[in-house]
Amino acid sequence: MRPPSEPSEPAERSEDAWLRAVASRFPAGPRVETGIGHDAACVRLDGRLAVVKTDAVIDGVDFRLAECGPEAAARKAVAVTASDLAATASVPRAAVVAVALPRGAPFALFDGLARGLAAATAECGCDLVGGDTSTYDGPLAVTVALVGEPGPMGVVRRSGARPGDALSVTGALGGSILGRHLTFAPRLREALVLAEGRVPHAMMDLSDGLAADLPRLCAASGVGADVDAERVPVHADARRAPGPGTPLSRALADGEDFELLVAHAPLEPAALAALAARGVVLVRVGTVTAAAGVLRLVTGGVAAPFPRGGYDHLRAPPRPA
Amino acid sequence: MRPPSEPSEPAERSEDAWLRAVASRFPAGPRVETGIGHDAACVRLDGRLAVVKTDAVIDGVDFRLAECGPEAAARKAVAVTASDLAATASVPRAAVVAVALPRGAPFALFDGLARGLAAATAECGCDLVGGDTSTYDGPLAVTVALVGEPGPMGVVRRSGARPGDALSVTGALGGSILGRHLTFAPRLREALVLAEGRVPHAMMDLSDGLAADLPRLCAASGVGADVDAERVPVHADARRAPGPGTPLSRALADGEDFELLVAHAPLEPAALAALAARGVVLVRVGTVTAAAGVLRLVTGGVAAPFPRGGYDHLRAPPRPA
Repeated sequence: MRPPSEPSEPAERSEDAWLRAVASRFPAGPRVETGIGHDAACVRLDGRLAVVKTDAVIDGVDFRLAECGPEAAARKAVAVTASDLAATASVPRAAVVAVALPRGAPFALFDGLARGLAAATAECGCDLVGGDTSTYDGPLAVTVALVGEPGPMGVVRRSGARPGDALSVTGALGGSILGRHLTFAPRLREALVLAEGRVPHAMMDLSDGLAADLPRLCAASGVGADVDAERVPVHADARRAPGPGTPLSRALADGEDFELLVAHAPLEPAALAALAARGVVLVRVGTVTAAAGVLRLVTGGVAAPFPRGGYDHLRAPPRPA
Repeated sequence: MRPPSEPSEPAERSEDAWLRAVASRFPAGPRVETGIGHDAACVRLDGRLAVVKTDAVIDGVDFRLAECGPEAAARKAVAVTASDLAATASVPRAAVVAVALPRGAPFALFDGLARGLAAATAECGCDLVGGDTSTYDGPLAVTVALVGEPGPMGVVRRSGARPGDALSVTGALGGSILGRHLTFAPRLREALVLAEGRVPHAMMDLSDGLAADLPRLCAASGVGADVDAERVPVHADARRAPGPGTPLSRALADGEDFELLVAHAPLEPAALAALAARGVVLVRVGTVTAAAGVLRLVTGGVAAPFPRGGYDHLRAPPRPA
């Protein structure tokens, strides 16, 4: 007999549903400031706050080794994890990495990974301080964990969006598959500029696409959102990328943009210009509403349900890369 | 043309040789107290020391999922990583986990992992605070990163052994493949008792076997060692386990004992008894010598070269499990 609290299989096969189903197994202890369900966790260590996050990239899922080589793969492993620290306006300080090598992998692969890890951790301003190497009958997988310090606002969460807030993104969306998913720079500096200005009420990084990630921010904040279709910055890559859909639908659903999604008090043009002068472009795409869970896409004044979708790690086929 | 400092392929295909070859790519910054080459790293975060370590376990290499189930696999992922914190006499506080699921994995597998992760992190006294889930065309892989605090001696390293030190282990060795490699308790409590008594000059955990790990401790400390064959505590499992070799050779080379190897000033019987009264059994197996790099196995007063070997993650075939 299962106890009544035992998780049962969620009706929907999705990463979010599975995580919700098992979340009760992990009650947060008194050291946990921010735990499961945020871009990065924050825990009290020896009286100070430390931020921690892990993320993995796998050949055939997140990159194609034969096309991009080990340096780019390693760089992506660091960058996707650093992007989560950026989402909380935190500062990465140290990285550890677990590498799973295909059995018989040559030294050149290992050294290419080392080169990419060294370059990417240096770009993020942190030290690579340890690692673990395995060989196995499987594709190259690189798993990075970062530890860091909260920025000037502490750890910014997904949960602080308020009705009336502007919803903005830090850059154009869609079509990252053409190459940006490997070469993007995590928005660490931009996040710190925003935090210094006390701008974000809530923030996250767009790893799975606005169509997947905006519902998460809204759910964490207990709010709704209206997105203005005409304001969504569609990247030129979204027009050039192969596949179904329109450029707008790709901008919403492709994922791996790794731009920041920010909920903030509406800003005057002078404030936006001051941010732009420091290299941070906030493109307003919509407005937070009080209608919890109601997300709408507004086109020419006509509201329709916001498309749900984006990348799901349990449902999706391998990403081409 | 490669620059002259570019790493070239080591003559030997081994994890240690490959790591040495790329180590120069990762110079330690000023925040790094203990970096690559130790059981766990130690970095300065916001003025305090934090310990960090990652380790991975993979189906077909470190466990056999069909035989042990997901709970035991998840438990091992946490325990092997916690064992590295024990090796430095540190205290785990928070865990993050990256799970790579075989494509189409059922919810029961995911939930079994969650159950094992919850139990194992609770046993280690830390919180699981975040994770990452992927699906791919490969075997189940569970990668855990732990962050923690240094214990009462700070971070104990491999590099402090001195000629004349006793070399001791915290328990019997060999044959862990019969089950202990999945069920062992990381020696966290024992390490803290030792650190409270300021006992260890150098310490590490025996993950790859004394035959692989003692040379590492000696190399880090710039010393040699004489091991007394008759003193090596051979586990009953080493007599029962299948495979080639003698019980002693298995005790030296099987690996995955996860006992602590401690170099310390020789202790009087009263001091050993006081440790035993707190549940820490130190079994002396040898003596540190000044002959750097010279390791000998002494049997009935006759010295022979210490067998090199143990588990190597680049050379070895899959472990049966």
